[in-house]
Amino acid sequence: MNAEIIAIGSELLTPYRQDTNSLYLTEKLNQLGVEVVFKTVVGDNRRRLVSAARQALSRADILIFMGGLGPTEDDLTREAVAEALDLELHRDPEILAQLEKRFARRKMKMSPNNEKQADILFGATVLPNANGTAPGQWLSGKYDSKEKIIMLLPGPPHELKALFEEQCLERLRAKLPEQFIATRTLKVAMMPESQCDARVAPIYKRYPDIQTTILAGAGEIQLHLRTRADSLEAAQQRVDKLAGEIEDELDDSVFSSNGESLEQIVSYFLQMRNLTLAVAESCTGGMLAERITSISGSSRYFVGGAIVYSNELKTQFSGVPADLIAKHGAVSGEVAIAMAEGIRERCHANLGLAITGVAGPTGGTDEKPVGLVFHALAGDGKTDVVEAAFPETANESAGSPRNKRSTW
Amino acid sequence: MNAEIIAIGSELLTPYRQDTNSLYLTEKLNQLGVEVVFKTVVGDNRRRLVSAARQALSRADILIFMGGLGPTEDDLTREAVAEALDLELHRDPEILAQLEKRFARRKMKMSPNNEKQADILFGATVLPNANGTAPGQWLSGKYDSKEKIIMLLPGPPHELKALFEEQCLERLRAKLPEQFIATRTLKVAMMPESQCDARVAPIYKRYPDIQTTILAGAGEIQLHLRTRADSLEAAQQRVDKLAGEIEDELDDSVFSSNGESLEQIVSYFLQMRNLTLAVAESCTGGMLAERITSISGSSRYFVGGAIVYSNELKTQFSGVPADLIAKHGAVSGEVAIAMAEGIRERCHANLGLAITGVAGPTGGTDEKPVGLVFHALAGDGKTDVVEAAFPETANESAGSPRNKRSTW
Repeated sequence: MNAEIIAIGSELLTPYRQDTNSLYLTEKLNQLGVEVVFKTVVGDNRRRLVSAARQALSRADILIFMGGLGPTEDDLTREAVAEALDLELHRDPEILAQLEKRFARRKMKMSPNNEKQADILFGATVLPNANGTAPGQWLSGKYDSKEKIIMLLPGPPHELKALFEEQCLERLRAKLPEQFIATRTLKVAMMPESQCDARVAPIYKRYPDIQTTILAGAGEIQLHLRTRADSLEAAQQRVDKLAGEIEDELDDSVFSSNGESLEQIVSYFLQMRNLTLAVAESCTGGMLAERITSISGSSRYFVGGAIVYSNELKTQFSGVPADLIAKHGAVSGEVAIAMAEGIRERCHANLGLAITGVAGPTGGTDEKPVGLVFHALAGDGKTDVVEAAFPETANESAGSPRNKRSTW
Repeated sequence: MNAEIIAIGSELLTPYRQDTNSLYLTEKLNQLGVEVVFKTVVGDNRRRLVSAARQALSRADILIFMGGLGPTEDDLTREAVAEALDLELHRDPEILAQLEKRFARRKMKMSPNNEKQADILFGATVLPNANGTAPGQWLSGKYDSKEKIIMLLPGPPHELKALFEEQCLERLRAKLPEQFIATRTLKVAMMPESQCDARVAPIYKRYPDIQTTILAGAGEIQLHLRTRADSLEAAQQRVDKLAGEIEDELDDSVFSSNGESLEQIVSYFLQMRNLTLAVAESCTGGMLAERITSISGSSRYFVGGAIVYSNELKTQFSGVPADLIAKHGAVSGEVAIAMAEGIRERCHANLGLAITGVAGPTGGTDEKPVGLVFHALAGDGKTDVVEAAFPETANESAGSPRNKRSTW
């Protein structure tokens, strides 16, 4: 069975808002072996909604409508789906009573417009919404002699996710042929995408039964592996085997072998070794610390650090001798090392990490072009430094469909 | 005329990638008075593409197809649109020659699959693509006795934007009735959305000719105003009048009166007054510096600062006396003030800005709950401190269609 996701709401047709629920739903559907074949965004307009619903009925097996279940006159999903399916809506007295209770608990009087949230499609199962007033609905059966599954879900992401997980996943699984799908996500850094693909393509091409998708994102390359087999164990063994071969080939460039983020891996690493970290950032201007502290519990290993944008602060906070900067320039391996060692010492941390570089868009020279960056990591008695060059176009297509490599 | 945007690419139907071009296109179309009524995402599948194209022809006046113009066998947009419109494709010898030249310049031999990028829909105008190999196409005229405009644009965002701006905007403007549309965007901070709406609703309701959209995002509320009139001046005066009344009502809570970001406003402010800034961050862990330095040229006013996650670093880098922390706690107005004054002094900056708070998700107490934050700003001889409480759910719906308030 395949699926169409229909996101409903005029705000999703403005320049300011975008449907993000469909990414979550796609992941869940893929795990059940369901492919998403269309995504449609439609505004709060009954005629257009009915047309979108009819169109979806004609081309997909599973239809997921998101949004438009609230109490306002703009919320038209129930009415439109009923019209498209030629089904009646009935007002469910039990849901009505629950709505009234909900308002009473908050010592509010329920206004009449809320009542329509109790309107249920004939034959539909009500999906209670623990996080909002509007319940979801589930409808399945033959339509035009084809098996269809139709879900009406609330638009707010936290309502949708909880409701889908609790009410839809098992129902969906029961309706689908048993599928054994395994996935693995590897993440790779410090390597251009073309080089990564050139090295791994000969490997994944030997696994035609595994769908391999290579995506280049900001600062990392993701390899998504996915396969089906006759049992979950067989599928898992198969993707694990390919993942293992890729890891052998790319070695240390693979920083994540199960989809974890870079900051999550840093967190594991530091906690496992019981180490603390301090940072001195120049060109990244706080981004490094921000990413490290985005992990809950990061205060267990991250003590802090300094943003040493100016040369003066490189000296003041990370103890870089002024004459070292004068001699080698602020963007140099020597200064990176001094920053790392200086911040480690001043913060009494086990590790000191420093970054200095030419972030651009201006300030580059022939000798030190935009994108030239030095990283240094100081530990007990040893400091490593890495020089890296990031092309100027690196972030041009961030978040965009810049690359795809797939085989199935 | 209204529009449908059709994004093409199987990667846009995975959990990892999302169409973002449509936000840009929607903004440009809205500026010309064109409403987007549907957005469709379809994979690299000819049958489905043809069906999506036919459907779009039946329900929209302007059709924008994005993606699927490359040289691979997955790139099917040309063929599918030709089939849906029942038009022939012809291989344009001039484009073919240009493609060959392009490859020759890079000293590469052009493989035969590249030739299909020269296939042009009968009657279409070729839109040269300065940033890629695949040109766009423009087709307009009567279809089924209705005026249609059809554009085929490349998928990569930088190609699409440049091509649309250079080749499509003027053509589109010439086809549309002259429209005079003016917009204003105000941004508001430090105020709950419900309170903001309660205060401005009585004002914007007196302007039924202006479409007012209120959107709550991460840390800010946006008010988008938009109207049409008989001349651009009249339209502009009208939105400016409403914007002025809203600014009078909300006063200093409006930080941006023309859509600028908060960091952009900080940049203007500091450069206008020729001031430098240093920061001491605790709970934000680098995010404040990261946002400030996201503005190109921020090194003119931002000197740097410290991430003082631990109490020890609050003393070490921002000179907070250890006994002050012991007495008032790290999250207190007293410590925020000392951090701001300390970092200002150590960085020799005109202004020192400090943040300390309980970021959560854990670490909150009854007295100091998660979300309690103190900001302090130290200047020459004067330090201000603000205590703020951010509800835990604040970022739950970031980037999602959480709120909408509109009148037209």
